[in-house]
Amino acid sequence: MSSTKNSFKIAVLPGDGIGREVMPACLEVIDAAVKVIGAPPMSFETHQAGAQFYAESGEALPASAVEACRKADAILFGAMGWPDIRFPDGTEIIPQLDLRMEFGLFAGIRPIRWFPGLPKVLSDPRAEGIDFVLIREQTEGLFYARGRGEIRNDQEAYDTMQITRAGTERVTEFAFQLAEQRKRRGRPGVVTCVDKANVFSSMAFFRKVFDEVAEKHPDVQKDYAYVDALALNMVKKPWALDVLVTENMFGDILSDLAAGLIGGMGMAASADIGEHYGLFQPAHGTAPDIAGKGVANPSAMILSGAMMLDWLAVKHREPKLADAARLIEAAVEHTLSTKTAVPMEYGGGANCADMTRSVIGALGAVR
Amino acid sequence: MSSTKNSFKIAVLPGDGIGREVMPACLEVIDAAVKVIGAPPMSFETHQAGAQFYAESGEALPASAVEACRKADAILFGAMGWPDIRFPDGTEIIPQLDLRMEFGLFAGIRPIRWFPGLPKVLSDPRAEGIDFVLIREQTEGLFYARGRGEIRNDQEAYDTMQITRAGTERVTEFAFQLAEQRKRRGRPGVVTCVDKANVFSSMAFFRKVFDEVAEKHPDVQKDYAYVDALALNMVKKPWALDVLVTENMFGDILSDLAAGLIGGMGMAASADIGEHYGLFQPAHGTAPDIAGKGVANPSAMILSGAMMLDWLAVKHREPKLADAARLIEAAVEHTLSTKTAVPMEYGGGANCADMTRSVIGALGAVR
Ligand SMILES: CC(C)[C@H](C(=O)O)[C@@H](O)C(=O)O
Ligand SMILES: CC(C)[C@H](C(=O)O)[C@@H](O)C(=O)O
Repeated sequence: MSSTKNSFKIAVLPGDGIGREVMPACLEVIDAAVKVIGAPPMSFETHQAGAQFYAESGEALPASAVEACRKADAILFGAMGWPDIRFPDGTEIIPQLDLRMEFGLFAGIRPIRWFPGLPKVLSDPRAEGIDFVLIREQTEGLFYARGRGEIRNDQEAYDTMQITRAGTERVTEFAFQLAEQRKRRGRPGVVTCVDKANVFSSMAFFRKVFDEVAEKHPDVQKDYAYVDALALNMVKKPWALDVLVTENMFGDILSDLAAGLIGGMGMAASADIGEHYGLFQPAHGTAPDIAGKGVANPSAMILSGAMMLDWLAVKHREPKLADAARLIEAAVEHTLSTKTAVPMEYGGGANCADMTRSVIGALGAVR
Repeated sequence: MSSTKNSFKIAVLPGDGIGREVMPACLEVIDAAVKVIGAPPMSFETHQAGAQFYAESGEALPASAVEACRKADAILFGAMGWPDIRFPDGTEIIPQLDLRMEFGLFAGIRPIRWFPGLPKVLSDPRAEGIDFVLIREQTEGLFYARGRGEIRNDQEAYDTMQITRAGTERVTEFAFQLAEQRKRRGRPGVVTCVDKANVFSSMAFFRKVFDEVAEKHPDVQKDYAYVDALALNMVKKPWALDVLVTENMFGDILSDLAAGLIGGMGMAASADIGEHYGLFQPAHGTAPDIAGKGVANPSAMILSGAMMLDWLAVKHREPKLADAARLIEAAVEHTLSTKTAVPMEYGGGANCADMTRSVIGALGAVR
């Protein structure tokens, strides 16, 4: 049975800083790729949100934007936040965390893969084989404490981490299913539970629920790692990693570390997936230091767009969207590996527009 | 005013696995070094503790061992823990955490420095300039939750992180003083507060107290980093780091990651420092896979021994002990850089005894 949808509605939140620069690049590339493939087109609806919009309007994440996201088939998110714009109580404007809660985006997916053209950060030649994916739980864990912290008499502060059975089941189930899919691509799946079960009872509980879920997937190998040892192993032999699943805060730290292994945030695509919703955003921030100059590398945003097409392809049984996703990935890889355009962060001279033009130009070449 | 002590009493806890192999190596090297320098000798008193001792005796950390530590001038610790030996409730045997609480060892110090002979993990040549120190708070933070976790109906688990003003003051004060000392060695000190102040109120509190302490050290530069960004920067440009101070759990993760940058746990020395006590241990574990074979690299333990001599030198105003510490460090560096002995973990053939012999042999050469 194939999809009956002949177009997809995408809610677009460029946000702040370089989010506003890389987003148009991404939309252009998606448009071009679906055309080349003959996949159903996307209609993009842009909404303002973020710190700079807050400064202008008094609203960081307007209800109308949230409603538009709810009605859309998927959400594209640039980056939000700005150094000196804060809420009156001094807290930072980070609507991405609100959206994760609002839409139950429990699985933060961060694929980490090296390909030719990326910097060789590690000197071991095996690092060219880096290809793993980190699944970060995104609705509980230590982030449960956000907005709930307690400060007593300016002397003691407390934040509580929550691990629920339901929350752990859904994210570990997600990880096992992902490992199964990778198996279909001819690779044996291994899911590693990354925790600190030797010290914290919530983490021992996380591991216990992970084990229960693993029982239902006898075809997938399981493994365990303490988060500290895993951080070391990410540097020592990341090529041995496959699918990792972990708590929210640990996942936040490890996913940035992982991005470092393949050359930093310029390439770090990510997806925030829930039961019904999917939000796709580069892992980088708003980069105030380079914002407004048009020099940001749009690759992470573009690759996040490809993750969106992949997700829509499965959800709506529209294989052509997956073809468009593959095409985009191939075009980005072609651009970098042939050095048609070398992003400034890797010592080249290509700005955002140059990168975009090269990737679009490569769509035909790699088809 | 110089020391009146003419010998030092060291409580020695070799522990489990390779702890029992690297400890004798360390004691031999210390003995030899203080002799070469003519510093006051150490008298070592060995006590059993750990998982294997628990299996034999029913006690993991006997009161007599704790008392001996209390009476000693310093504590040398090997490694403790063993895969299948656990307490009846299923929790792991990790007396190192109990000792941190018992003796108020609030500052976990992890020096990270590259020197010739160490593997070049990062391909950037600037990585040869890696030279920073991580200070991990060790008496509160998320580890406050140990033994206090709550599990409700097998459905939800909670662990609470605690940040106190007193705890944060003492560890950040420690970091600033360390930065000041480094300044004396001709390097400008920069202390970076590593937190997640953008999300957690306890972490914002940590940063606030850090700022207050920084006020008292106008000569030292201060900086901030979110823990996720810092993890990325450790891979991207660790040569730019100087003194880092952070919460317990973050420090646990970052210190292992940092060790990875200079070739892993075989070189990772550490010190656990309190108001009155000092415990010195390699950052590695008991390594059940290689334990009993005599092949462990004793360098981390030996360098931890040098950290002990340094600490005693300051505490008891005995500069000769600092000379002995420098001598040991130089001998380890000489051994590795001249490849007199290459540890097996770096592809060489030197076992624990070979390494020890080479380091002792080098003491004269580097004097
Ligand atoms: C902006 C910040 C609060 C956020 C997080 O910690 O989740 C970011 O680091 C991320 O990973 O999306
Ligand atoms: C053994 C373990 C509980 C311990 C910790 O987490 O503190 C270790 O990783 C360390 O860093 O000393």
